[in-house]
Amino acid sequence: MNTRMICRVLGWILLILAGLLLLPLCVGLLYREPVLHFLLTALLSAAAGFLLTRIRPRTTAIYAREGFVIVGLGWILLSLLGALPFVLGGSVPSYVDALFETASGLSTTGASVLSNIEALPRADMFWRLFTHWIGGMGVLVFLMAVMPMSGEHSMHIMRAEVPGPSVGKLVPRVRKTATILYLIYIGLTLLEAVLLLAGGLSLYEALLHAFSTAGTGGFSTRAASVGGFNSLYLESVITVFMFLFGVNFNLYYLLLLGRWRDAAKNEELHWYLGIIAASVLLLSLGIRSLYGSFGTALRHAFFNTAALISTTGFGTVDFTLWPEYCKWILILLMFCGGCAGSTGGGLKLSRLMILGKSMAASLRQMLRPRSVNRVQMDGRRVEDGTVRAAALFFSFYMALLLLFSLLVSLDGCDIATSFTAALSCLSNIGPGMTRAIGPAGSFAFFSVRSKLLLSLAMLLGRLEIYPVVVLLSPRTWRK
Amino acid sequence: MNTRMICRVLGWILLILAGLLLLPLCVGLLYREPVLHFLLTALLSAAAGFLLTRIRPRTTAIYAREGFVIVGLGWILLSLLGALPFVLGGSVPSYVDALFETASGLSTTGASVLSNIEALPRADMFWRLFTHWIGGMGVLVFLMAVMPMSGEHSMHIMRAEVPGPSVGKLVPRVRKTATILYLIYIGLTLLEAVLLLAGGLSLYEALLHAFSTAGTGGFSTRAASVGGFNSLYLESVITVFMFLFGVNFNLYYLLLLGRWRDAAKNEELHWYLGIIAASVLLLSLGIRSLYGSFGTALRHAFFNTAALISTTGFGTVDFTLWPEYCKWILILLMFCGGCAGSTGGGLKLSRLMILGKSMAASLRQMLRPRSVNRVQMDGRRVEDGTVRAAALFFSFYMALLLLFSLLVSLDGCDIATSFTAALSCLSNIGPGMTRAIGPAGSFAFFSVRSKLLLSLAMLLGRLEIYPVVVLLSPRTWRK
Repeated sequence: MNTRMICRVLGWILLILAGLLLLPLCVGLLYREPVLHFLLTALLSAAAGFLLTRIRPRTTAIYAREGFVIVGLGWILLSLLGALPFVLGGSVPSYVDALFETASGLSTTGASVLSNIEALPRADMFWRLFTHWIGGMGVLVFLMAVMPMSGEHSMHIMRAEVPGPSVGKLVPRVRKTATILYLIYIGLTLLEAVLLLAGGLSLYEALLHAFSTAGTGGFSTRAASVGGFNSLYLESVITVFMFLFGVNFNLYYLLLLGRWRDAAKNEELHWYLGIIAASVLLLSLGIRSLYGSFGTALRHAFFNTAALISTTGFGTVDFTLWPEYCKWILILLMFCGGCAGSTGGGLKLSRLMILGKSMAASLRQMLRPRSVNRVQMDGRRVEDGTVRAAALFFSFYMALLLLFSLLVSLDGCDIATSFTAALSCLSNIGPGMTRAIGPAGSFAFFSVRSKLLLSLAMLLGRLEIYPVVVLLSPRTWRK
Repeated sequence: MNTRMICRVLGWILLILAGLLLLPLCVGLLYREPVLHFLLTALLSAAAGFLLTRIRPRTTAIYAREGFVIVGLGWILLSLLGALPFVLGGSVPSYVDALFETASGLSTTGASVLSNIEALPRADMFWRLFTHWIGGMGVLVFLMAVMPMSGEHSMHIMRAEVPGPSVGKLVPRVRKTATILYLIYIGLTLLEAVLLLAGGLSLYEALLHAFSTAGTGGFSTRAASVGGFNSLYLESVITVFMFLFGVNFNLYYLLLLGRWRDAAKNEELHWYLGIIAASVLLLSLGIRSLYGSFGTALRHAFFNTAALISTTGFGTVDFTLWPEYCKWILILLMFCGGCAGSTGGGLKLSRLMILGKSMAASLRQMLRPRSVNRVQMDGRRVEDGTVRAAALFFSFYMALLLLFSLLVSLDGCDIATSFTAALSCLSNIGPGMTRAIGPAGSFAFFSVRSKLLLSLAMLLGRLEIYPVVVLLSPRTWRK
């Protein structure tokens, strides 16, 4: 393994972190808040990063193994260091709580252990929601965009960080692909911020909620989340943008190229829209009696469908009080997640489509053993390896879900709480499906052990399992 | 599709049913109970069976599709007709309840909707528990044993009824394989009955509980299930036999041939024993404080591990009162199920082993793309097709589990109840993990819709999904 090169790239990541920490520092200066905790953390990251980048590798070669290790270690480092300002500044006294909050931020989960959110200093709040934006598109993708590295090598890193069953390069050069992805990301974020500004939010809150939506995170500056705005316009803007950030970014690139026909033909998009329509309809019917009018029911159904399928997890109402079958519809959305190549989490729609089509094909094969049954997506054949990878990922995911449910239940919480807490963290959503951990609840009551486990689950979910598993596997470290 | 041949085989199945119904009829006569309801049902089955077997097919060819349709339709017919005696005799007034109870019996689930079990006439009780024994090894396997059919054709039927990722023929001839399986089944059942007799049970109760254990069903003559015996000896015998019926029957055949070394080398057996040991240990530690002594805790841990991994579902204590993480261990056992080729349900251990090994292999492949990573079981390579089939079965299973959870939750029951009710029925266990449907509860409170859905889930579980799905697929019936 090319340990020196791994150290070097980790060094770059820390330098980026130091740079990113200057943003909340500036926010603090602007609002005349103490900023020493950000300065210290930035200096620490810069120093460590500087030392690591001094290491000269014999070769710059990076293969799959190095890619996984860099992404896995990089994200753990970011979580560990990103949590420091909260502790040093005193806004989150416990380091484990701060780590949970940072892992939740970076992984774009949005589950919180804070009790009095609105008392947070503005700089700390900025950092808390900005981590969503960093984690949404990924630090390594950013690094790919700014660093001159050979395409083949950086592709291994990109594959390990970008979600979905297969990573398509938009253009032949990885660096250009990464740049385009980030430009689309920035463009959409700014567009949302402007629209939120137009709805009467302050620049600060507009920007922060745009960060949170863009990363499909779910942290909010308000204890009541988006429900605290009490504005149909703001809710609608956020609903639309939650849907938009759950869509494969490749489609936006096609739109930029003027190839809107190709974008509109995308099969995953059709399923995405179909699932949303079905879910909104069923939920509206289920909760109509709770909210008096069908209109209000429709509004809440739309918002929460968007919040869960995009895995953002913003809240307006407490859906744990909805009828039981509505909760199950939401649970199904939590499994599903956004499209591949979006900032959303979960199993990813295209993976589920591949599985569904394979099941149908295997059934046809059983009935007519001599017929040819290929799995197709967007008119192209899906290779056997991709099908197997999707099926194994699904198995891994389910196994982890059950394992984390078991481990979290050591705290003594009931089956539904441990199950949906694990699911919510693994799918990077935020709230769970019982009152204690629902939109009106918090993850504060969990033990230190469970908080650490759930932080791990969030990183496993965001990085799609393999980088973290590779990191923890003794085989990786064997000569 | 060879419809005529399908009708003919279904006719044979009905004739067998008519014959089987004579057994409770004799029991009724012995205990001087009314038996008209059994006589009527037997006559009806015999008449329908006779008419169907009159149909002369142009060819006796049976392919995969016919195999699935025969098994799917056959089991539905058996459930529909097998429920009749309960309604005609008045012991279960509602036909839907009787159908649920019969599907639960035949599928070897053991979930009950009856409120006053001990008030059942002895003939009806005999039929109720005897359905477990019929369903355990399967009616079609019995048919294979007694009917002269060409091996290739009957193999398609056998494959559709016998559980596990791949059906191994013990001997080249299907008929002989089926006969050997039934002889082992009968032998083990009688052995258990004798041991239960020796423990002081009446011949009637000893035989009935042997039936229930052999099919890994879980119905009991007592409301308190095996706990009602209040005997360490009887509990121990039943615990051991629950474990035994969860083992692949091929191993018993190897023992009969004197090849005990080969049997002892079986990898699935090692995992089975390992999982049991781990589960018993963890459960004992968890429930020690509940039962005062470690000895009592060990006894309950053994019994319930056996009851759940073998998917029998007998009860001695109410495990829904155990610590939450103990419930999760039991839930994991419910997913797992017995070995392939046993009478147990669930996902089957060998399938999970194939998945686990494939995940490990794919991880190794990622780390060293040029290395060769084959999945092996018992020293032999597992083919790619088998791996894919196991992964797709797992996906199907999970999708059905979530779907049935959603549909059952329309009754308004909480997440844990709908989830574990669906899991319990799909894995053919019996009790769920909440008080209402636990060992001390019943499925009586579910709506008619849910009872029908759960009956379907039980059949889907017992037949390992495909035969029922094939039956419901419009493609099957297209010319």
